[in-house]
Amino acid sequence: MRSDLERFFNPKSIAIIGASKDLVTISGQPLSHLVNHGYSGKLYPVNPRYPDILGHKCYASLADVPETPELALILINASRVADMLEQCGKKGVPYVIIFSSGFSEMGGEGVALQQRLGAIAEKYNIGVIGPNCQGLMNVAGKCYAGFGSVFFSDYPAGRVSMVSQSGGFGFSVLSLASLDGGLAFRQMVTTGNEIGVSTLDFIDYFIRDPHTDIIAGYLEGAKDARRITEIGLKAMAAGKPILMWKVGNTDEGQKAAASHTANLGGAMALYQAAFKQTGIIQVEDIQDVVDYGRMFRCGKLPKGNRIAMITVSGGAGILMTDECVSRGMQLAKLAPETVAKLKEFVPSFGSLGNPVDVTAAIFNDLALINRTLQAIVDDPGVDCIALINASLQGEIATKIAHEIVAIAKTTDKPIAAAWSARDVMAKEAYAMLDAERIPHYKSPVRCGRAFAALSGYAEAKRRIEAQRNERPLVLQKTQSKEILNNRVADVAEYEAKKALAEYGIAVTQEELAATREHALAIAKRIGYPVAIKVQSPDISHKTEAKAVKLGLSSDAELAAAYDEVLANAKAYNAKAHIDGVLVQEMLRGGTEAILGIANDPLFGPAVMFGLGGIFAEIMKDVSFRLAPVTLSMAREMIAEIKGYPLLTGARGRAHADIDALADAIVKLSALAIDLKDHVAELDINPLFVMERGKGVKAADALIRPKVKAGN
Amino acid sequence: MRSDLERFFNPKSIAIIGASKDLVTISGQPLSHLVNHGYSGKLYPVNPRYPDILGHKCYASLADVPETPELALILINASRVADMLEQCGKKGVPYVIIFSSGFSEMGGEGVALQQRLGAIAEKYNIGVIGPNCQGLMNVAGKCYAGFGSVFFSDYPAGRVSMVSQSGGFGFSVLSLASLDGGLAFRQMVTTGNEIGVSTLDFIDYFIRDPHTDIIAGYLEGAKDARRITEIGLKAMAAGKPILMWKVGNTDEGQKAAASHTANLGGAMALYQAAFKQTGIIQVEDIQDVVDYGRMFRCGKLPKGNRIAMITVSGGAGILMTDECVSRGMQLAKLAPETVAKLKEFVPSFGSLGNPVDVTAAIFNDLALINRTLQAIVDDPGVDCIALINASLQGEIATKIAHEIVAIAKTTDKPIAAAWSARDVMAKEAYAMLDAERIPHYKSPVRCGRAFAALSGYAEAKRRIEAQRNERPLVLQKTQSKEILNNRVADVAEYEAKKALAEYGIAVTQEELAATREHALAIAKRIGYPVAIKVQSPDISHKTEAKAVKLGLSSDAELAAAYDEVLANAKAYNAKAHIDGVLVQEMLRGGTEAILGIANDPLFGPAVMFGLGGIFAEIMKDVSFRLAPVTLSMAREMIAEIKGYPLLTGARGRAHADIDALADAIVKLSALAIDLKDHVAELDINPLFVMERGKGVKAADALIRPKVKAGN
Repeated sequence: MRSDLERFFNPKSIAIIGASKDLVTISGQPLSHLVNHGYSGKLYPVNPRYPDILGHKCYASLADVPETPELALILINASRVADMLEQCGKKGVPYVIIFSSGFSEMGGEGVALQQRLGAIAEKYNIGVIGPNCQGLMNVAGKCYAGFGSVFFSDYPAGRVSMVSQSGGFGFSVLSLASLDGGLAFRQMVTTGNEIGVSTLDFIDYFIRDPHTDIIAGYLEGAKDARRITEIGLKAMAAGKPILMWKVGNTDEGQKAAASHTANLGGAMALYQAAFKQTGIIQVEDIQDVVDYGRMFRCGKLPKGNRIAMITVSGGAGILMTDECVSRGMQLAKLAPETVAKLKEFVPSFGSLGNPVDVTAAIFNDLALINRTLQAIVDDPGVDCIALINASLQGEIATKIAHEIVAIAKTTDKPIAAAWSARDVMAKEAYAMLDAERIPHYKSPVRCGRAFAALSGYAEAKRRIEAQRNERPLVLQKTQSKEILNNRVADVAEYEAKKALAEYGIAVTQEELAATREHALAIAKRIGYPVAIKVQSPDISHKTEAKAVKLGLSSDAELAAAYDEVLANAKAYNAKAHIDGVLVQEMLRGGTEAILGIANDPLFGPAVMFGLGGIFAEIMKDVSFRLAPVTLSMAREMIAEIKGYPLLTGARGRAHADIDALADAIVKLSALAIDLKDHVAELDINPLFVMERGKGVKAADALIRPKVKAGN
Repeated sequence: MRSDLERFFNPKSIAIIGASKDLVTISGQPLSHLVNHGYSGKLYPVNPRYPDILGHKCYASLADVPETPELALILINASRVADMLEQCGKKGVPYVIIFSSGFSEMGGEGVALQQRLGAIAEKYNIGVIGPNCQGLMNVAGKCYAGFGSVFFSDYPAGRVSMVSQSGGFGFSVLSLASLDGGLAFRQMVTTGNEIGVSTLDFIDYFIRDPHTDIIAGYLEGAKDARRITEIGLKAMAAGKPILMWKVGNTDEGQKAAASHTANLGGAMALYQAAFKQTGIIQVEDIQDVVDYGRMFRCGKLPKGNRIAMITVSGGAGILMTDECVSRGMQLAKLAPETVAKLKEFVPSFGSLGNPVDVTAAIFNDLALINRTLQAIVDDPGVDCIALINASLQGEIATKIAHEIVAIAKTTDKPIAAAWSARDVMAKEAYAMLDAERIPHYKSPVRCGRAFAALSGYAEAKRRIEAQRNERPLVLQKTQSKEILNNRVADVAEYEAKKALAEYGIAVTQEELAATREHALAIAKRIGYPVAIKVQSPDISHKTEAKAVKLGLSSDAELAAAYDEVLANAKAYNAKAHIDGVLVQEMLRGGTEAILGIANDPLFGPAVMFGLGGIFAEIMKDVSFRLAPVTLSMAREMIAEIKGYPLLTGARGRAHADIDALADAIVKLSALAIDLKDHVAELDINPLFVMERGKGVKAADALIRPKVKAGN
């Protein structure tokens, strides 16, 4: 497919196929917007009904157009789009935007119609945006190639580029952020049904675009989701934050998955894992994009997560503290020297702690804020600084802004202001801050959230840079592939654990018995007590089938239990094929965990970690990462669940062997990648995590094989 | 104390003590603001340094003022405030606002100084606001009695009244909400250190104020916190929503509590319980007050939580759905008749589900939105309706607004719009909606949140109205009071359980043994297996002391264990007084829960429910209610924890006896109230919840007695 996406934004010539003289309608708008906003290339409206539109000669057909346009906009009825795309192909048009609706979004015949478009695009190597989109806007290059209310206004050019799967919402973001929010955009593109260029393709392009500093995206779902980590890391390396909406979070529906891992690993869990792994910042609302965008525009990153606040309002300081601390930041502890300095001029009824409350005394002593700010900036234990100026306005505001600007120029620590004066009341002050790209926010809450976004991004950057030298474990094994090849039914425990063992994950001592006597012999070798479990590809839920007996402590007990579990298995499913009865050591002590693999059709293999059944299933207290998972990532996965204290000695427990647990996660990740064509889902449940130094052991496992097309 | 708080807002005359001619300073501002905003009463500046200020005669002392002013503003140095308050008292001034800082907020001598103020106020029966506050603003009555940047502007009068413990933040809310947000305020008062009138006093007054419809509050902490439920329910009965900031959430610190209940029941948990019980709506930011306030101003409440959306942008519909569903609303299921109607005019590539997507086709067919809206309004399964108009603007916007207004007038279902056009682009449309108090929001996210706030409030109202006929259980017992009277040390299990039993909560069958032979005799009566536990007021953590043995199944085992636990107890604490050894039945099956009482110094007794140890302690999955707890409230407590499915049959468990559990909570609530002077903390941990029909049983309990002052 064509990858020079820059051509979409700066085409030398555009054919507008289906252009209408009714300039209010969808097909009438694009030509009118291109003309009105000063597009400088050539325009070729195509419509047999008109001789000309807006002074531009109108062509009866695309064939009549005297040159090959670099971009064609298709604005005709869905039923005629395929023919027209074919004509574009024949004419050699390299790039096409299909606006028309009536394809996969309506289901039924629309789906088939859309497939036809895809085939034509491929045949002629056409780069296609859409169908069912609202086009694009290159603000900087004055190419407004789309329709919608937002196109009727002019926008200032900035350095934010956005791609959106929703036209209506995407363009409203551009409009409100650019004009009301003061965060100007460079370009916006809506991708609709994405038969050709995808959201991720455009993000990839924005990373390469030297005039884009900040990337925004609105995503309902990505067909090429497995590229998110690669693209996210690329953006991080380029220093371009990605502000991302991921919507459709409450409508995941139920899957028919065998494993807990797959049940818990719905699309949203995997998107969030991908975002976390790459430092992509999730946003919820338009204001977030404005607030975070303005913060990132300052061009400074904090070296740590310690914030100091200087406030004229105690209350606002508390609000910002709540916001920052609940989002992972820390209140900086001021150095004794700093406190001593502050003591010289902060009023006695103020506060020398952090937040430093200089109080409303600012009205009587204007120098208070900047003297305080300088002292705080000089403190080596402070990574970033918030000034909370309440509603200070007019002349006082201007003087304070002057001091902030002067100090900000001398430091690489990010400084921002929570400043509630209305725009008209502190116009000059705000303009001074804007000119120096010092972010300011109307509420301490918004300022705190923006700082937390910046701080979280900086932390992700440090983490990712540290991980860059970490090689993921790569294992290539053969036995498991042979066992799993062409399997359709769920793989029983004893076979699943053979696969685990091949990749170095410790499993319980066990052996498959074919007869009662065989079972007794195995038990003798392993030593009592033992557990026995009927193994059958037709019985995935052994406990439910009463085909399991635990804690058997003698030959007599084992012999009786052997007959019982086989009888139960028969009663549960008379047709079940029985591989044998697994005789297994009983584990003592340790904490029950669950590890798993969800090999998602879109994302590829992901690894899950959680604590024993109830924590994972009921509390959904689990963590996911897309494979490969390095050792430090595995440690993050372990530490981020709420139940983590249970592994570190809470409630009088022994400290668990977290090293061995992390090692098992890394090995499972290597298995997930090596067997990605063979394993659809995998659960290790439970994995016993023993006390420190004593390792982990898989006590049960289940594999649902990946069934190849044709099976 | 004086309770006619209306006088603060509408005083007939005001003395401004410490008034300054420097009108920019704190002491110079109030007179200037009162004059400039058209205060119509009499003004008496008091300051020996000036003959007059702003044309008002200035008095050398308060004694010189020719009448008794109804309100005095004190703007002098902290050290002189007490004397001046005394002078106010002697002159008979009924109401005083103390602006001066330098009291309890600075600790040390400031605390003593503040206590003196309190004593003087009481002596003379003066109603006091402050100290350390920024005054108040009665916008409607043009009484701007305070200082700060915000006072330099004029505000429109509305029907929102707010009280704030933070002056700087509170007034920034008024300024931004009134002028930028379009939500006009009636009055704002800042309370500072609250030696006299409290935040809750003012909320109580706003409930009685016939010109206030919506109440807002900013609260750091309430010394009279136990009044929150009473005042919250009063506001609910009056139909006045309370929008409340509760800040200081991340700085709770650690308490030295004996029980899990007290450890988990930090201030924030109790505030949140109080808010939940009374329908008080928590807000996070200024925009929330504006958004929710505009929604409540529509004057309509939905009858249920089912929302329908009509959108021109599929993406915006998904965003609003995420927001509403994650906040407890449901997407209405449209009736087949409604869908049939819609089918007549919604384009085939649109969507007839909910959200109904009429698509960008609206540009070509303007009638689409209002025909759709009428059909949705007529659907009996829809409780409220959102229109998502993306950035529609100009003439189209005006026409659509016209239709919305016409339909909204005919229905009592709340209708609101997510409408992203900038103000200048849809001026006429927005004005039409505003005139009819139809809320509109710049983003679907904000619209969704506001709907969720309205829906949550309506749901709380229905719940509270249903609970109004429910009498809380009242029990008055004597034996427990006798046992607990004058106790200082923690009360051991066997005594704590006697208290539980007196209030009708089932406990394990058990008896205290004084000797080994006694223990054997008790075990015979109870039947093996039994547990034994050393009882001592000096050993609260019996397991830690190894003073517990479980599952003893014979006389021999019991005899050996008896000696062992006593030896262990001695080894643990040689000086411990031993009451005896408790011999107790062993419970089998059931789910372990925890019930408890935290008798908070500010809130009074609160009841907690959670599941077994780890869930409560590590996952903090617990629910709180302030006592008294009725049966339906107890059921809410049970159902709201995340682990609830464990009680309703998850993971193949038996359905637990939730009726008995709720009954135990109600009885514990009755105990909490009857023993509120005796019990500081109480844990029942574990409480075994047996399967349906088999009841609950307390297996262990701990009481930390309330130590009376002087003990």
